Amino acid sequence: MRSVSIIGIGLTKMGEHWHLSIKDLIAQAGSMAIEDSGIERKQIEAVYAGCMASGRLVGQEHIGAMTADVLGLNPVPATRLEAACASGGVALRNAYMAIASGMYDIVSVNGVEKMTEVSGEDASFALGGAGDQETELFMGATFPALYALMARAHMEEFGTTEEQMAAVSVKNHKNAVHNEYAQFRNEITIEQVMNSGYVASPLKLLDCSPITDGAAAVILCATDVAKKMKLDGKAVEIIASAQASDTLALAHRKNLWETRAAKIAAEDAYRQAGLKPKDISFAELHDCFSVAEIMAIEALGFCKQGEGGKFTEQGNTQIGGTIPTNTSGGLKAFGHAIGSSGVKQAIESYWQLNNMAGKRQVKGAEIGLTHNVGGSGATAVVHLFRKV
Amino acid sequence: MRSVSIIGIGLTKMGEHWHLSIKDLIAQAGSMAIEDSGIERKQIEAVYAGCMASGRLVGQEHIGAMTADVLGLNPVPATRLEAACASGGVALRNAYMAIASGMYDIVSVNGVEKMTEVSGEDASFALGGAGDQETELFMGATFPALYALMARAHMEEFGTTEEQMAAVSVKNHKNAVHNEYAQFRNEITIEQVMNSGYVASPLKLLDCSPITDGAAAVILCATDVAKKMKLDGKAVEIIASAQASDTLALAHRKNLWETRAAKIAAEDAYRQAGLKPKDISFAELHDCFSVAEIMAIEALGFCKQGEGGKFTEQGNTQIGGTIPTNTSGGLKAFGHAIGSSGVKQAIESYWQLNNMAGKRQVKGAEIGLTHNVGGSGATAVVHLFRKV
Repeated sequence: MRSVSIIGIGLTKMGEHWHLSIKDLIAQAGSMAIEDSGIERKQIEAVYAGCMASGRLVGQEHIGAMTADVLGLNPVPATRLEAACASGGVALRNAYMAIASGMYDIVSVNGVEKMTEVSGEDASFALGGAGDQETELFMGATFPALYALMARAHMEEFGTTEEQMAAVSVKNHKNAVHNEYAQFRNEITIEQVMNSGYVASPLKLLDCSPITDGAAAVILCATDVAKKMKLDGKAVEIIASAQASDTLALAHRKNLWETRAAKIAAEDAYRQAGLKPKDISFAELHDCFSVAEIMAIEALGFCKQGEGGKFTEQGNTQIGGTIPTNTSGGLKAFGHAIGSSGVKQAIESYWQLNNMAGKRQVKGAEIGLTHNVGGSGATAVVHLFRKV
Repeated sequence: MRSVSIIGIGLTKMGEHWHLSIKDLIAQAGSMAIEDSGIERKQIEAVYAGCMASGRLVGQEHIGAMTADVLGLNPVPATRLEAACASGGVALRNAYMAIASGMYDIVSVNGVEKMTEVSGEDASFALGGAGDQETELFMGATFPALYALMARAHMEEFGTTEEQMAAVSVKNHKNAVHNEYAQFRNEITIEQVMNSGYVASPLKLLDCSPITDGAAAVILCATDVAKKMKLDGKAVEIIASAQASDTLALAHRKNLWETRAAKIAAEDAYRQAGLKPKDISFAELHDCFSVAEIMAIEALGFCKQGEGGKFTEQGNTQIGGTIPTNTSGGLKAFGHAIGSSGVKQAIESYWQLNNMAGKRQVKGAEIGLTHNVGGSGATAVVHLFRKV
């Protein structure tokens, strides 16, 4: 398998883009990535597009072909990948595999979601499609309710507190202040989180990631080809790519306080790269809800099982801490345009490893980790990165 | 790149399955394929699931994880691929690439669509997501209307007649009589097609493929591994896998009477295998509408551009003709459970090449071709097969 690197990145600002269609979002991020990489369009051999729920949200499927079309890349093979909220991560992984295998040298990875142009009820129903509609959503659960069950289980099993979960949101908002692409660039306090209304107890409004329009893109290139073509100035190598699955429905899991697929994917990623959790400089985690980041740092081995709440409260995951997490602002404050999130995590890694993250830079960053989760944990994708 | 083969197949009967959920359909076809292949579940290393519009049709995304879950395959990586009506074809292709690259030895390819449990209006809207909703469907076009524009252009440019298009449906119904999995096993006549009501002139009801519930699955295995494990008794090798894209909207094409992506994918497939159109023994084509089969046989080089109507009328595409097409019954009579169709085409090839097609067997079949199209031609996937 060949070494594969990110050689260019593109991103829209996250938020409510009432004046931009899904095509506009794809075009903006995708064109930026092509320009950033220094390649010409005709050098791109394939498109891998991550998108979760465009059918439900904007009435549009066939997002792979649409992406190739709006970026002027026809007739290259263009494919959409979907794994709920991990759609961006699986797009990145399949693109990585296509280059690693020798099939292609240069491909475009695009992630997008246009979420604001539906009624609140429809967006909620669309997001429910990440879980098991038949046994969960049709029975009255909303998606926040599923994570609320996990949060409650974690609290019961390990004594995790609502304040500890709130600390995740506070940290991520603090980081997002310094990210010009973030949806929310305001700091918040523990008190504000605690006083925000319950969405699904114990999760409150400020424990939940928002509804977001946005797109992200990276250009991947075989590392040897990038070097030969002098495209490797800012190249960041993908040194591990792992994915695992778990039951779709929460009710079929052994317990609700751990994410088994994330553990398995992380172990595989560490094995691929010959690294351990202590070797990771920073991590972009899937904090769709605050409790999800706490479960993630446990699954990834940054702290012991059950100690994620305390670990967060003690400041270990802040910039300057032992393992800075979600320096981008995370899904909570950066925003969560679903199909783009797994791609945007790779972009934050690219920025951090190129020492381009400005006021949120992790000093001496050498190895980055991204963790992208689909649904309530039925898909997990873990990537590891280092500077070429 | 390693040789990859199909070592087992599974299929549901196509039709209106009011008593079967999308999970049931996946489980039925997927389990049959595992059993047919002779492997154990634990040998499967990844799942590639093709599905177009489950979000819109049954409110469910995350079809990759769902497939792994209902087949008892957790925690393997499980990914859904979507390219509108070519979703099954791209799932097959990505699974093929994953084995060819050396990443995996054995993977499950699953295709599904549950289409009947929505109102007519919703199914129509969902299918419209294969085209360009913004400029086509939201402006009043239905999906049959897009193909009607192509049919009209083909008639104007080449003198193709409605009777010639009707001959496609008549042939495909005739073939489906002998396929126990087919949705419609009744013969029809040119007169019946001509007298059926217009859906979008010149296309009539009997020019159109139906709304179908169904699933299909194949187990892919590295050919050398299959031989070593003695799983190659009925193995059929994938000797070429090609994909291309075109503009999403018809309005952006150079003309409406050819499918450029299919031409490009076919040329690539022939090049990969070192074969020519005359070397093909039979072809499973994407006849979502009768005119689409006529355009397909032209794009694939079985006859000259513009002569597809006459070629069909003369009986060349019948079993016993120069190039038998859609021996399965095609999308028209076999049924078109969208995400499953690209996988089902591979299954018909497996049957034909193993001399298992019964009364619809093509004598001396050596090379099979499948042609799976997304939308009005924005995606085309072409595979070639031969007996190991």
